[in-house]
Amino acid sequence: MSSTPRIDKAVVADALYGKWKQERLEGRALAADPRFQTIPGQSMADHRERALGQLSLLVEAGAIQRAFPKSLGGGDNHGGNIAGFQELVFADPSLQIKSGVQWGLFGAAILHLGTEPHHEAWLPDVMTLALPGAFAMTEIGHGSDVASIGTTATYDPETEEFVIHTPFKGAWKEFLGNAALHGQAAVVFAQLITRGVNHGVHAFFVPIRTPDGEMMPGVGSEDDGVKGGLNGIDNGRLHFTNVRIPRTNLLNRYGNVDADGTYSSHIDSPGRRFFTMIGTLVQGRVSLDGAAVNAMKGALAIALRYASERRQFPGPDGRDTTLLDYGHYQRRLLPLLAETYAMQFASHRLLETFDEVFSGVNDTDENREDLETLAAALKPLSTWAALDTLQEVREATGGAGFIAKNRVTGWRQDLDIYVTFEGDNNILLQLVGKRLLTDYAAKFKDGDVAAIAKVVAGQIGEGAVRFGLRQMGQSIADLGQRSRSVEGIRDPESQRALLTDRVETMVAQIAMSLREATKGVAREDRPAANAAAFNTQQAKLIEAARAHGELLQWEAFTEALAGFEGETLTVMTWLRDLFGFRLIEKHLEWYLINGRLSGARAEAVTAYIDRLIGRIREQALDLVDAFELTPELLRAEIATGIEAERQEEAQAYVDAQIAAGTWPVHEKELRKRQRAEAKVGA
Amino acid sequence: MSSTPRIDKAVVADALYGKWKQERLEGRALAADPRFQTIPGQSMADHRERALGQLSLLVEAGAIQRAFPKSLGGGDNHGGNIAGFQELVFADPSLQIKSGVQWGLFGAAILHLGTEPHHEAWLPDVMTLALPGAFAMTEIGHGSDVASIGTTATYDPETEEFVIHTPFKGAWKEFLGNAALHGQAAVVFAQLITRGVNHGVHAFFVPIRTPDGEMMPGVGSEDDGVKGGLNGIDNGRLHFTNVRIPRTNLLNRYGNVDADGTYSSHIDSPGRRFFTMIGTLVQGRVSLDGAAVNAMKGALAIALRYASERRQFPGPDGRDTTLLDYGHYQRRLLPLLAETYAMQFASHRLLETFDEVFSGVNDTDENREDLETLAAALKPLSTWAALDTLQEVREATGGAGFIAKNRVTGWRQDLDIYVTFEGDNNILLQLVGKRLLTDYAAKFKDGDVAAIAKVVAGQIGEGAVRFGLRQMGQSIADLGQRSRSVEGIRDPESQRALLTDRVETMVAQIAMSLREATKGVAREDRPAANAAAFNTQQAKLIEAARAHGELLQWEAFTEALAGFEGETLTVMTWLRDLFGFRLIEKHLEWYLINGRLSGARAEAVTAYIDRLIGRIREQALDLVDAFELTPELLRAEIATGIEAERQEEAQAYVDAQIAAGTWPVHEKELRKRQRAEAKVGA
Repeated sequence: MSSTPRIDKAVVADALYGKWKQERLEGRALAADPRFQTIPGQSMADHRERALGQLSLLVEAGAIQRAFPKSLGGGDNHGGNIAGFQELVFADPSLQIKSGVQWGLFGAAILHLGTEPHHEAWLPDVMTLALPGAFAMTEIGHGSDVASIGTTATYDPETEEFVIHTPFKGAWKEFLGNAALHGQAAVVFAQLITRGVNHGVHAFFVPIRTPDGEMMPGVGSEDDGVKGGLNGIDNGRLHFTNVRIPRTNLLNRYGNVDADGTYSSHIDSPGRRFFTMIGTLVQGRVSLDGAAVNAMKGALAIALRYASERRQFPGPDGRDTTLLDYGHYQRRLLPLLAETYAMQFASHRLLETFDEVFSGVNDTDENREDLETLAAALKPLSTWAALDTLQEVREATGGAGFIAKNRVTGWRQDLDIYVTFEGDNNILLQLVGKRLLTDYAAKFKDGDVAAIAKVVAGQIGEGAVRFGLRQMGQSIADLGQRSRSVEGIRDPESQRALLTDRVETMVAQIAMSLREATKGVAREDRPAANAAAFNTQQAKLIEAARAHGELLQWEAFTEALAGFEGETLTVMTWLRDLFGFRLIEKHLEWYLINGRLSGARAEAVTAYIDRLIGRIREQALDLVDAFELTPELLRAEIATGIEAERQEEAQAYVDAQIAAGTWPVHEKELRKRQRAEAKVGA
Repeated sequence: MSSTPRIDKAVVADALYGKWKQERLEGRALAADPRFQTIPGQSMADHRERALGQLSLLVEAGAIQRAFPKSLGGGDNHGGNIAGFQELVFADPSLQIKSGVQWGLFGAAILHLGTEPHHEAWLPDVMTLALPGAFAMTEIGHGSDVASIGTTATYDPETEEFVIHTPFKGAWKEFLGNAALHGQAAVVFAQLITRGVNHGVHAFFVPIRTPDGEMMPGVGSEDDGVKGGLNGIDNGRLHFTNVRIPRTNLLNRYGNVDADGTYSSHIDSPGRRFFTMIGTLVQGRVSLDGAAVNAMKGALAIALRYASERRQFPGPDGRDTTLLDYGHYQRRLLPLLAETYAMQFASHRLLETFDEVFSGVNDTDENREDLETLAAALKPLSTWAALDTLQEVREATGGAGFIAKNRVTGWRQDLDIYVTFEGDNNILLQLVGKRLLTDYAAKFKDGDVAAIAKVVAGQIGEGAVRFGLRQMGQSIADLGQRSRSVEGIRDPESQRALLTDRVETMVAQIAMSLREATKGVAREDRPAANAAAFNTQQAKLIEAARAHGELLQWEAFTEALAGFEGETLTVMTWLRDLFGFRLIEKHLEWYLINGRLSGARAEAVTAYIDRLIGRIREQALDLVDAFELTPELLRAEIATGIEAERQEEAQAYVDAQIAAGTWPVHEKELRKRQRAEAKVGA
């Protein structure tokens, strides 16, 4: 054991906090305050009231002002704002998401889509919660396809008003936080129509309810009722029957209508204009990504502490074996720990990019592209990983994991929706995949593929989101049939090459399939043929995007290694390798089919992972300690040491009985003795 | 389309009902009655009261008497009893599991572990619910390892009583339904000690609470509180401080203590005795297996009906595309449909075997072995599959899937615990794996492997559960490098050979690894070496057991095909093939590493699956209709046709606007026209 390296926990903890440690600590201090914490089993009505009250407490604590302009008493601290927000998952995800609705969606839309008069008129009340609001984008009939929403905002030059109208049931706004009860206004997305022309989706500020809770004339609301989680949020529907608002309620940063009905915009292309507006809302994805990683940290802290104390089934020494010493337990939990670290480092890169763009420090087109790529690639992977991790932890902690006071099921229920809101994960990955295809087509000047990529864009409601696909020019070494060992591929360059090669080859294969399928098709049949061809490749494209995201995570982990040294670096490198090789193992069939790994080497990959897991087992508690999750943040009975106390009490009882000679002999033992005596007698 | 075969839905429906159609229809009639149905968002206290009331309604309806002896007014209909029970998942899983606690565990323990005086004394009140009870087996410190529980039952010949005692906190009985509030008695599992000898775990009838809810002297209870699901059940803890019960409260079918303290049993081996007692409780696993399949049917009925109506993103014809026409949606949902059918047929086999054993029609050792193998192999696979299916359906239905009234999240929450109760799934698969190893060792007279298998048995708390591993003597054809096509492996014999070969080879590989690792180890070091060797193979052994279970499912589906003909047979064969090839695709890396499939043929497998999915897409609604789940059973708004109505209303609105010339031209279209005009003008 003396040769086992140990990490410097404080150094690792700092790396896990990232750039906005102070804001994270402030967020954690709030989460450690009982006033912000979930009460399991609370009724929906009470939970909703409590969450609303918690939002006021956040205002009092000065916790929400960071992202707003200094001129209005804010901090202009965009990264720090999200960092603090992400920690609220330790308090109650309902509180987190309700605050996200109020300030991250409703308030941020006014901030980013509106102009100064709007800021002055509404933001002060938004910030103090004097004006709770909803973000009315999604419609029943159009979830992910925002460009196709049905709500109309028709300009009436006679009265200089917009008429907000819901023409059919499918255009009801749906799943909106603050819509069922608390919202007094909403940012409503609608097709802007003036002078008989539809200028596409724009956002409008629409009062919906008096402070007393009376609906405004023409505005209707319906309660979504109980949900699978997040029941502290009053989600609901909104619809509008010829509701008139002043012309100046158009949030007109990207498009304006003059008094006479003339439309103007400084972005000429309607497509690019739409996606620029939508792009300002990327912070939701950034926020969820880090929140998901925090839930993973919480879940693994609970599971690994419990598994290091809990004993089950007698081992060879007679005493029950600790769960964490079982090979299968290690296989279930330790790769998730490596994944959590990788996702945390990737999440930091995303948040830093977000801050650079939104603070204006580096608000270039290219950096915005990077930001949108990263968010669309990482948010799906981390939110899915959070659900998988929470479920594995639930099962690994057995019945105890099912009891609400041990936290895991609550997080699982609340975070369930994270995988389909702020962009359905599969749609987001298609955005990434489309960009991979477009870049591929550009590289090879392949017009056919470019045309199909355009179809993909149409299919996923995306026309101009721009992604900065990292240049992946590494030449792939021959990683083939050398020897039955992992030696040749253990270095980081080989890991990178294997992961990169997979993304590039998959994209090239998809592009080729698409071109094959539409070759020689007549011009007029092209759209249908392209759509059909895309459909056959859709699942593969999503898989390629996922591979791209995994590569980004691996790169982020690898970059983070530069911040460590000595034994810490040794251990963190094992953890990175565990993450990298698990990715390769997960996709072994691809590496085998495509001749990148021989069968023997594929087996060596698995054997090496087993070795890494054996080493990480000794590090597991340190690596969890570095999360610095206090009992107030975890609040899980089984992570408090209670299990070790029980085990010790039980062992002490047995030992005392044996010492006193009062421990009854087991019938099995008795029979063994009798058999032995019979033998001697014979 | 005229060439598309169509299934005979009534014939398929009958096959899905299986042998106890009448009892299933009766169960469904109950589930369709609002008095038995979940109320989303109900408080824990109200839900518990409601579930208790529902149990009384079940008694009134005559729904629970089937499994009890005719002499006591029962039906002696074991299979029919479970079949009806499995349908209650459509009403409320809390009701289902609470009834399972009362009659399937508490009542069944008295029936199967007790003798006639016990039956006469208690079963009538158990059946009428005059005597609600708990099943007190699990302890905080020993979940899956029942043999090691700490509770003691020490015989006192002076008073002819047993003293039930909880010696330390880890021995508190935990997670017991009916323990927190409603139970008046419990079947308590404890180490039976008489004359200074511990005869191992036996079951005792212990009064715990008066009908007024007062705890009996020496009995303590603690409420587990809110759980991740099943909140209609009052789970709690129980502990005993020198609680005295009459000697005759020992449920003495398998072991008895005379007045003078003499212990006797007709099963000589303490190990075999224990597992015989535990074996009588297999019905819990049988019940959960079919309930999980029912939840899968419900979830897929909801998702596929919704996906066949819901449209999203404009297709090449200008109209939005139906979700079910997207390649990725088909990939997500249709293999789950094939899996659901396979699991339903496998579940029928399990239930029939259960009925043969418990009705006494075919209560041979061999058939009991088959029953226990089947249950331990199938319950893990179906309960996990149910969670995966529910989650995929939740995500595929987006925000709508998260709303409680659409059912999916409720089932997901309630069924979560199914994967770790009535046997933790991983432990159950280890039992199967251990049997696979033992059979392997027996076949090759390999003492080393047999010794290690024994260690496995120790590690998983299993000494004598006997499994009937099906003889798998098929010779494996050379399935290698012939051609880039699936033709050579499309027939059922090839599917069977591929699936069988994987199980056999994995077991052989594990056996070899175990033997290698312990070769030449000194006798005294053997136990530790065996345990260490097993630990390295534990994950693989579980995977081998899973492969065995998958083979059983495939066999059950294949046998079920004999009941179909004509076009129905054609479609059902596609579905079976989809199931079989998905299994092979899921494990492609194994087939590649072990040289069973070439890379080219592996790709052909995936291509063939894509073709099958394209065909099944046309059958999806018929295959779901054959579940015969009425609106009263599904009760999901999005499965009622409401989405199609909304889509039609929206389309009609647009069509009318266009016809009236009031549909505003889109700026994009306008610009295109302007560009075209400019061209003409130039």
